[in-house]
Amino acid sequence: MAKIITISRQYASGGSEIGRKVAKLLDIPYYDREIIDATAKESGFDPAYIERAEQSSTNSFLYNLAINGMYSQPLTDQLFAAECRVIKALAEKGPCVIVGRCADYVLKDGFDTFNVFVHSTDKFRCERICEHDNLTEDEALSVIRQKDKARRRHYKYYTERVWGDSVNYDLCINTAVSGIDLAAEIIAKLAKN
Amino acid sequence: MAKIITISRQYASGGSEIGRKVAKLLDIPYYDREIIDATAKESGFDPAYIERAEQSSTNSFLYNLAINGMYSQPLTDQLFAAECRVIKALAEKGPCVIVGRCADYVLKDGFDTFNVFVHSTDKFRCERICEHDNLTEDEALSVIRQKDKARRRHYKYYTERVWGDSVNYDLCINTAVSGIDLAAEIIAKLAKN
Repeated sequence: MAKIITISRQYASGGSEIGRKVAKLLDIPYYDREIIDATAKESGFDPAYIERAEQSSTNSFLYNLAINGMYSQPLTDQLFAAECRVIKALAEKGPCVIVGRCADYVLKDGFDTFNVFVHSTDKFRCERICEHDNLTEDEALSVIRQKDKARRRHYKYYTERVWGDSVNYDLCINTAVSGIDLAAEIIAKLAKN
Repeated sequence: MAKIITISRQYASGGSEIGRKVAKLLDIPYYDREIIDATAKESGFDPAYIERAEQSSTNSFLYNLAINGMYSQPLTDQLFAAECRVIKALAEKGPCVIVGRCADYVLKDGFDTFNVFVHSTDKFRCERICEHDNLTEDEALSVIRQKDKARRRHYKYYTERVWGDSVNYDLCINTAVSGIDLAAEIIAKLAKN
């Protein structure tokens, strides 16, 4: 079977839930927030700072120059490098599911991966957030746009690839059509193929 | 079930074969070259001309200006309009599989569609062409690049969308991982969902 399943996902599309279900179906570990804690341990960064930095869309050259000065490696880049080491160390342990954090790109050389991109309709995603976070539809849509923008920029900055370009993934799936359970079943089946 | 399954595909990725298998699994009609013949009938264009025009990547403004002059609608645009009418008429008859021809875009309003993008690795595609067309690997790779470029441009010109951008499809699948049969099974299952 494909050893490492990476899941990239639009915000609130159900990617994390699918990841947990796939891990259960295949009886392998699931890593999401665990990566933040491991990166904190390995790098000395505070977990809360890591989480903020992951979700920031301000990886621009000028931003980094202002925050970090001309000659030092930006903190966000140091953080990304630490996350890469953690992800590779986890992947070396054996089959697992890794959600987010450009893992498809980080593991592109020398690892046997099955790369997934999960997306959905605005309607499906809004319903999930409104229910979960007690937001109006307009508020939910605004959160979705912001979070997706940050993820797209983060991915582009570190990988030079286009987030959600199908040719970078083995499977892309619309959860508004598949639902969560069937998507997880299909991924588990393909990963075993 | 989703009424109309549209399949867009990288050249030699197995999309047409998958389309035929899905149609068989669901016992619904499969339309590919049939659309050329129907368009020829409806428009008076020669089928051979239609086929050439579909595969041309010269839908540029300057090209059309040179060929068609300033004031007439370019022939390729007239042809596309005729194909749209044919595709919509076929879709109105009932559930079916339609391969290529921007059908996902043509049917985006008022039709119940399940849209698929099929892609694969260069290796998988080269092997299919070398075997089928008796080409060297370099020749096969060159054909792949040319055909994909034409399809990408054609799609962009008529839809203003990016060919293979996962958010425009309900499923994108890498046949180098899934193979042809499992991809067809998954599509049939999702379309029925």
